[in-house]
Amino acid sequence: MEKKKWRTAVSWHFNHEAYVRGYKLSDLVGNLTFTEAIYLVLKGELPTEAEKQMLDAIFVATVEHSIAPPSVIAARAVASGGNSLHVAVGAGILAFGEAHGGALEGAMKFIQENYKKNPENVVAEYIKLGKRIPGYGHRYYKEYDPRSKKIMDVAKRLGFYGDFCQFAEEVEKAIEKIKGKKLIMNVDGAIAAVVSEMGFDWRLGKGFFIIGRTAGLVAHVYEELTMEKPFSKRLDEEKEVEYLGKMPRELPEKYRKS
Amino acid sequence: MEKKKWRTAVSWHFNHEAYVRGYKLSDLVGNLTFTEAIYLVLKGELPTEAEKQMLDAIFVATVEHSIAPPSVIAARAVASGGNSLHVAVGAGILAFGEAHGGALEGAMKFIQENYKKNPENVVAEYIKLGKRIPGYGHRYYKEYDPRSKKIMDVAKRLGFYGDFCQFAEEVEKAIEKIKGKKLIMNVDGAIAAVVSEMGFDWRLGKGFFIIGRTAGLVAHVYEELTMEKPFSKRLDEEKEVEYLGKMPRELPEKYRKS
Amino acid sequence: MEKKKWRTAVSWHFNHEAYVRGYKLSDLVGNLTFTEAIYLVLKGELPTEAEKQMLDAIFVATVEHSIAPPSVIAARAVASGGNSLHVAVGAGILAFGEAHGGALEGAMKFIQENYKKNPENVVAEYIKLGKRIPGYGHRYYKEYDPRSKKIMDVAKRLGFYGDFCQFAEEVEKAIEKIKGKKLIMNVDGAIAAVVSEMGFDWRLGKGFFIIGRTAGLVAHVYEELTMEKPFSKRLDEEKEVEYLGKMPRELPEKYRKS
Amino acid sequence: MEKKKWRTAVSWHFNHEAYVRGYKLSDLVGNLTFTEAIYLVLKGELPTEAEKQMLDAIFVATVEHSIAPPSVIAARAVASGGNSLHVAVGAGILAFGEAHGGALEGAMKFIQENYKKNPENVVAEYIKLGKRIPGYGHRYYKEYDPRSKKIMDVAKRLGFYGDFCQFAEEVEKAIEKIKGKKLIMNVDGAIAAVVSEMGFDWRLGKGFFIIGRTAGLVAHVYEELTMEKPFSKRLDEEKEVEYLGKMPRELPEKYRKS
Repeated sequence: MEKKKWRTAVSWHFNHEAYVRGYKLSDLVGNLTFTEAIYLVLKGELPTEAEKQMLDAIFVATVEHSIAPPSVIAARAVASGGNSLHVAVGAGILAFGEAHGGALEGAMKFIQENYKKNPENVVAEYIKLGKRIPGYGHRYYKEYDPRSKKIMDVAKRLGFYGDFCQFAEEVEKAIEKIKGKKLIMNVDGAIAAVVSEMGFDWRLGKGFFIIGRTAGLVAHVYEELTMEKPFSKRLDEEKEVEYLGKMPRELPEKYRKS
Repeated sequence: MEKKKWRTAVSWHFNHEAYVRGYKLSDLVGNLTFTEAIYLVLKGELPTEAEKQMLDAIFVATVEHSIAPPSVIAARAVASGGNSLHVAVGAGILAFGEAHGGALEGAMKFIQENYKKNPENVVAEYIKLGKRIPGYGHRYYKEYDPRSKKIMDVAKRLGFYGDFCQFAEEVEKAIEKIKGKKLIMNVDGAIAAVVSEMGFDWRLGKGFFIIGRTAGLVAHVYEELTMEKPFSKRLDEEKEVEYLGKMPRELPEKYRKS
Repeated sequence: MEKKKWRTAVSWHFNHEAYVRGYKLSDLVGNLTFTEAIYLVLKGELPTEAEKQMLDAIFVATVEHSIAPPSVIAARAVASGGNSLHVAVGAGILAFGEAHGGALEGAMKFIQENYKKNPENVVAEYIKLGKRIPGYGHRYYKEYDPRSKKIMDVAKRLGFYGDFCQFAEEVEKAIEKIKGKKLIMNVDGAIAAVVSEMGFDWRLGKGFFIIGRTAGLVAHVYEELTMEKPFSKRLDEEKEVEYLGKMPRELPEKYRKS
Repeated sequence: MEKKKWRTAVSWHFNHEAYVRGYKLSDLVGNLTFTEAIYLVLKGELPTEAEKQMLDAIFVATVEHSIAPPSVIAARAVASGGNSLHVAVGAGILAFGEAHGGALEGAMKFIQENYKKNPENVVAEYIKLGKRIPGYGHRYYKEYDPRSKKIMDVAKRLGFYGDFCQFAEEVEKAIEKIKGKKLIMNVDGAIAAVVSEMGFDWRLGKGFFIIGRTAGLVAHVYEELTMEKPFSKRLDEEKEVEYLGKMPRELPEKYRKS
């Protein structure tokens, strides 16, 4: 039989009812928490109590982090153009590139590929090659990222502090030792270590950030749609913009048709 | 003082720590469930135990509903073009228009604006004007939507079955009586009634669907990125497409430059 | 035969070559201008010389209009998150909602539905119902929109000043007469009149703006990616944002698990 | 003075009129073709007649290429969800990732970085490292890409066949010689060579494809919105999808709350 173009293991209909990973969807309603259902959707199986709590901590850590980041600017700007909530939230999610949430994927890859090696060797190699180690350093937090600390505490309490987390913390120390400068393990680094511990593949990494932060984006877009006038998100050229371009000049005669 | 262009009540930094709705973010990690944090972000206050459970039921009901809908097609097609997870998920969310999730917003508006009126009069008026009542009817479920039934059961158990829910169910009966044809209260209608009961504004309506379904989209895009080859999501013109256009014709001489 | 889900009249492959609206694509390369090809793609036939020039004028009028609008903010913010050019441009296009480019669609609909009526009656009716007439008024241009004036001049020169354009200009006068206040025909209004004259359906309206402005968005995103550091597009809470939310407060005991 | 966060050289307002790259926008309307305006926006200066014609050929070559690719699937699926034209077109553009249009950027980078080297050495090096050379090979065209041939012909006629184009064609030959298998220079490779010749930076590469193809996307979304019913773009699980997941199973007792 020809391989079909569309294939999935996530969900299906049996006898006219939707099933998610083999469980009847309507059975899950009222029985699972949202986090349990997310775990099921992503991992294919139901979480233990500890896995559920760990994932709750991770999503709570990412749920919102001020109006400042590019994702909120993009989302509120799109809302301001006169769009529905979902369009603006979608635009906000598009901002989650390499410099904004992308570190989570990179950090998971880094940890999963290197955690069996000597942390100091790994760090020395990266520094030698001039490569950035994803998951370390934060423009705002210099001593420690309070979210990382909390996630590590919860991981210890729930039994998710193993080889990956230990490696991640040793990398932080190795960076300070070798570079002579502290680059703290940021929230991406901490989450990366813990979800690696939970058996998630690094290629799913950005998903945790996307799922968590969507709630924050919804709140911001709702504010924009209900508190502000359309088109309020435009720049004031005089005050906010620097013009680096050409001064006024005449269109050469040969381009004039009229 | 001049009003600032950017304003928010969602979150802020105090003493170099992020606060969400007045609570220190790092305090929430490990203490709140994801659903409690979402409620806080959206509503501005912490939920009661019943509110948390009700919201869990709602998000679980929307978390995933097969590979079939346009949002999954769009998300997987964008992933197939060779894009990162967040770009594909963002594209999927863009599909949540009037015909796909949008009914939640419409149904909330309908219920919140009409719940004090006589349901039969309201329905008769809509039918007279040829207007569709959002939240009723489903292309797949004809007798009842199992998700709606479950949500109403949970609402009753948790004390969220009040005027809005009653109105929503009476509308279903009125439609059958007046139209002589059953249009079942779908999952959008049921959620609309319950979140109205919980005091949410209809303009936030689509947000519940977006937050819930993002998890499903992440799972689908992850499948696409890990199980399928890039560009596998293209159409086979021979088998899948009907051509309605012009047959081959010559470019007229006067358009030829070469 | 069963109707196929995917159907198109835009393009097809014959004998292993791509054909657009019946013409071999490789024949068009080097013979048509971009604007001629766009006309062909949108309308299904090749343009006359006058149609080509008219469409050129319209696209040139929309190609760029400063860094200020929400679309540029969104596009540059998404680029700033560390994304590829196409993701940022896509996000910018998402901003073209009701308040930003959307007027073109509305104005075309308005003109196409009313141009046979008496302009003063139409305007009086709109004012009575408190409805905004799309295509009139501009926050920046108060006496006239220089782009509109130019488009009307070109339309007259090329023979596209007919019933639709006349109606559009009479509406401007009627608004001033009835409202006692000038609401100038903006660039959306002018383009709407002319493309109506050219036989385009109002439901294609936003397309002209999208096609034209995409070039401007590409230029802005290219600047962002090459001139600015990643994540430079974030808000300075102190200087740019007003906080309207709750002051710091303690998480109640009953929510504490740890 | 503090550096401003928003900076641009693209356009500005002087005396209440918009200027693009120093020229008054309303002066450009009616005088420039769309392609000339695009060149001005992207490059900062007006094109010569040859540059304009070359760019026309490039945009025409990219304007549309059948309903098959992921971008059209995504765009039409999003339209099918009940969205406005711009949202669907934006979603389509998001599909232009590494596997779909992205080769243009890669090919420009490849050519600009290597054109002074010996083509055979460059190809040998790539093959040794197992790296794909962007701009060569096509799933559909095996002997030659008719669009590439046409673009090279036009480049020769207009005087844009120089070092970059020569290098690009020599690479094609070197691949066949070293690999013993033909990988034809596809349309991305041909455009990459020519726009390099015209002095465009590779980081702008995807922009040419985005600008050109947006017209095709608009036509497809317009078809979807006017010819098809909302939600028609959903998958038929029975016929189109293969289920790889778990068979129905019971929710374990310990997860049951009700």
